[in-house]
Amino acid sequence: MRFDEELASRASVVNAWLEDYLRPEEGYAKNTIEAANYSVRAGGKRLRPIILTETHKLFSDVIMPSVKPLAVALEMIHTYSLVHDDLPAMDNDLLRRGMPTTHAKFGEAVAILAGDALLNGSMETALCALDVSKGQQDPDYMNRIVRSIRCLYDKAGINGMIGGQNADIMAERRASDITLEEIEYIYAKKTAALIEASMMIGCILAPESTDEDVLSMEQAASKIGLAFQIQDDILDVEGDEAVIGKPVGSDLRNNKTTYIDHVGIDQAKRDVKSFTEEAVSIVQGYTGSDDFLVRLLISLIDRKK
Amino acid sequence: MRFDEELASRASVVNAWLEDYLRPEEGYAKNTIEAANYSVRAGGKRLRPIILTETHKLFSDVIMPSVKPLAVALEMIHTYSLVHDDLPAMDNDLLRRGMPTTHAKFGEAVAILAGDALLNGSMETALCALDVSKGQQDPDYMNRIVRSIRCLYDKAGINGMIGGQNADIMAERRASDITLEEIEYIYAKKTAALIEASMMIGCILAPESTDEDVLSMEQAASKIGLAFQIQDDILDVEGDEAVIGKPVGSDLRNNKTTYIDHVGIDQAKRDVKSFTEEAVSIVQGYTGSDDFLVRLLISLIDRKK
Repeated sequence: MRFDEELASRASVVNAWLEDYLRPEEGYAKNTIEAANYSVRAGGKRLRPIILTETHKLFSDVIMPSVKPLAVALEMIHTYSLVHDDLPAMDNDLLRRGMPTTHAKFGEAVAILAGDALLNGSMETALCALDVSKGQQDPDYMNRIVRSIRCLYDKAGINGMIGGQNADIMAERRASDITLEEIEYIYAKKTAALIEASMMIGCILAPESTDEDVLSMEQAASKIGLAFQIQDDILDVEGDEAVIGKPVGSDLRNNKTTYIDHVGIDQAKRDVKSFTEEAVSIVQGYTGSDDFLVRLLISLIDRKK
Repeated sequence: MRFDEELASRASVVNAWLEDYLRPEEGYAKNTIEAANYSVRAGGKRLRPIILTETHKLFSDVIMPSVKPLAVALEMIHTYSLVHDDLPAMDNDLLRRGMPTTHAKFGEAVAILAGDALLNGSMETALCALDVSKGQQDPDYMNRIVRSIRCLYDKAGINGMIGGQNADIMAERRASDITLEEIEYIYAKKTAALIEASMMIGCILAPESTDEDVLSMEQAASKIGLAFQIQDDILDVEGDEAVIGKPVGSDLRNNKTTYIDHVGIDQAKRDVKSFTEEAVSIVQGYTGSDDFLVRLLISLIDRKK
């Protein structure tokens, strides 16, 4: 099977997982449920749940039942962050993946609530993992699930993604004097943190993985996250609007200082490549060179959207 | 000790608990941390953590260590809901408890992030309960903590508070044809749900409580929540702005149909009284008539703010 077919097949597994946790669009909470479901179904590449699951497979022959709720919770968190990030008070984007953003379609109030519902729903979903494995009653494995959930909210919270969003907004407002260190912080928190959660949780949920394995995955993910975000900046400059599904040049219009402004686009491309290679070499320490996860990480360099 | 002194003393215990979980205002995430801490410190009566703790004391001679993180998580959720509810796209309030609302002080983007940080932080905090009791390694008690956390996010989520917020916004937009049933749904979800979580969690975390006890507490809390919200409507009509710390008449200005519009203010007052009496009679089945919790529930009728 070709790589993009394999990727699509894995994404449809994740889509089916997501459907199992979406709510029926009925009752007095209908509008917010519709907006939350719309945001989740609007697509995306499901990279984080796929990376979580593929990392899990590096360390476990079978996919543990706890993987599904944690992968779904992770994608819900990623989705809520996009919904709130697109709001007028934040990035004020009307299009994402070629479709109207949630507030463009459902209004601002419902979009705020839909984001809240997805973050709250991620917790309800993640906690299901403790039920799924209840039959096992293995306290050691219960502890792994609790550690996974803690990792998720640590990486999603003020010390992770939300902290990165804050720094991003503040940098955007100042518009000048944004240091490279500050940009690296923003990328590490705003983007890499959830990729770190993906690989770490995949690893933690494998019954035989060690603390050292989890640390290695965090390191690999941190490099990949950085590479991914720099690639995003490159696509915002050089990408094809029809392919990306959102307007290009938005960083420039928003007076956003990016990594490229500091190091130049050629160095940025070289860095994407070398960061990815560092991550790949860590992962290859655990698996064969043609493993799907390795190919996925490498594909992050070559993506066009 | 007079009742209001006792209440103040319990509120300061909760305030000290909250401080233990607030983050230092430093680093690149500083603004959002400041806004989150400001929102939490802006006060309020700490009714939900107090109700949680007092309910716990009905069923347990000692306060279990898990009570503190769950009470703090609950107050964080209540606080985030106020921060998002005050936003321009929602209720557009500039004052709360006599102080500028979070977005009035920190701007809309930071207020959105601060709300997100508080909801995410509530999960990080609640999960600490599993650590606190880790030393005990009692799987039955671990299950009680997990049940408590699930109850919290069930009552805070789309089937609870967020669902109520959605219905509230939609009712406000239609402005007319809002049925009494719809208003009762909104009050049950928007306000009562978190009170239900308070009493249920206090009960669940007591090692000897039964499922029936938890159900009784849910019933009592549901009546109290309804009474509390109707009392809010009454204060919005008859309250003293200087005492309440926010403008009165906002429901009228926002074209909000309330319980009072359906039953009249005299019947509304009688309902507040009878709902409170129903709740009190359930609680009195577990405790003496002069118990602090009983006095607290009764005081919800007489409050001026």
